[in-house]
Amino acid sequence: MSDLPHITTFAWVPPFARGFVRDLRARWAFEEVGQAYVVDLIDGPYAKSAQHRRYQPFGQVPTYSDGKVQIFESGAIVLRIAEGSDLLPQDADARLGAIQWLIAALNSVEPFVMQIAVVDVFEADKAWSPMRRPRVIADLEGRLADLEAALGGKTWLDGDAFTVGDLMMISVLGGLRGTDILQAYPRLAAYVARGEARPAHVKAMGDQLALYEGADAPEEMSA
Amino acid sequence: MSDLPHITTFAWVPPFARGFVRDLRARWAFEEVGQAYVVDLIDGPYAKSAQHRRYQPFGQVPTYSDGKVQIFESGAIVLRIAEGSDLLPQDADARLGAIQWLIAALNSVEPFVMQIAVVDVFEADKAWSPMRRPRVIADLEGRLADLEAALGGKTWLDGDAFTVGDLMMISVLGGLRGTDILQAYPRLAAYVARGEARPAHVKAMGDQLALYEGADAPEEMSA
Repeated sequence: MSDLPHITTFAWVPPFARGFVRDLRARWAFEEVGQAYVVDLIDGPYAKSAQHRRYQPFGQVPTYSDGKVQIFESGAIVLRIAEGSDLLPQDADARLGAIQWLIAALNSVEPFVMQIAVVDVFEADKAWSPMRRPRVIADLEGRLADLEAALGGKTWLDGDAFTVGDLMMISVLGGLRGTDILQAYPRLAAYVARGEARPAHVKAMGDQLALYEGADAPEEMSA
Repeated sequence: MSDLPHITTFAWVPPFARGFVRDLRARWAFEEVGQAYVVDLIDGPYAKSAQHRRYQPFGQVPTYSDGKVQIFESGAIVLRIAEGSDLLPQDADARLGAIQWLIAALNSVEPFVMQIAVVDVFEADKAWSPMRRPRVIADLEGRLADLEAALGGKTWLDGDAFTVGDLMMISVLGGLRGTDILQAYPRLAAYVARGEARPAHVKAMGDQLALYEGADAPEEMSA
């Protein structure tokens, strides 16, 4: 362990997952606040081990550790990294606004985005997925329409200041990359593009993609 | 407006939703910290109005307001109510632990609990729901097994102290009330029962149920 904060992520993921692994949220926050960090690579079997589950009960990534805390959940990790920076304002009203949007991203938007991945990827071969898909799309579109109305003409969700709420909402909406769903919501699409064009996001995404570009598939998956 | 904090909830909900409306989470937190509060009742059409959506873009309840902040998302509301109390420890490590579990409840557990409601209630009449149900149950059971292992023999998720993390996790698992799914996870079932037996939860639940017991259905739904 160095004195820098550490995060864990997978040493290898299949091509469809590259650019979507949730360590991206931590990487982006680190870049926004200018904090150097160390990435510890783990493999799938280790993620499911008791040792890793001590810190991530669901056997996932990322986890985060520094001299003081050892936590999981990308939302909590981003809050930790953002503490003391402009991403998480000190003023009570602005701070709660940012946290509210971070939680809205995780609880009111991401579950609907995830269902797209369920029908199109994880359960794509199931008989029920084509039947469900229009309903899943309609439910998500309802959320996106509401969110676009809330964004209105603002640059970021709470106005002029980019916060952890935007970082998380744009990360969640980034889950729709590769679909054309956001095209019907031009303000929302522009908001996501604005977030993803931030130098900190470009660097974080580049680092995640570079990690996987040269990675070999683990033996048990390359047969 | 009195000087007390206000929350909004629905003036009426159908019987199946009683005991499950998310204002319960705010009520429980208020009771835990001993803070009096005012409940403002709204109806379905108002919830979908532009006026309410200024504060709750998805047209839902609860919202929260006090002299300083006006927010939505039950997770953010509970964090606001808990600030300065034992529910949200001041020590950095303990505080992040509590927030981590609150976010885990909302992002890693609730989406799986919600899918049970989707197949059994909201999409119960859809042809795909019976086909999907075993997979939905299996996915949820995976999460519950992981969570039970993380809880282990502890009283609360982070040990001896009840925090906002427990309040939210027990609230989310309360969504399974009326099913027998938790029976296979005796430690988790006991944990939920322990939380729901806290006087603050008993009071909060009693208040929500009492509100709806005498409530008349709105005219457009009583025909």
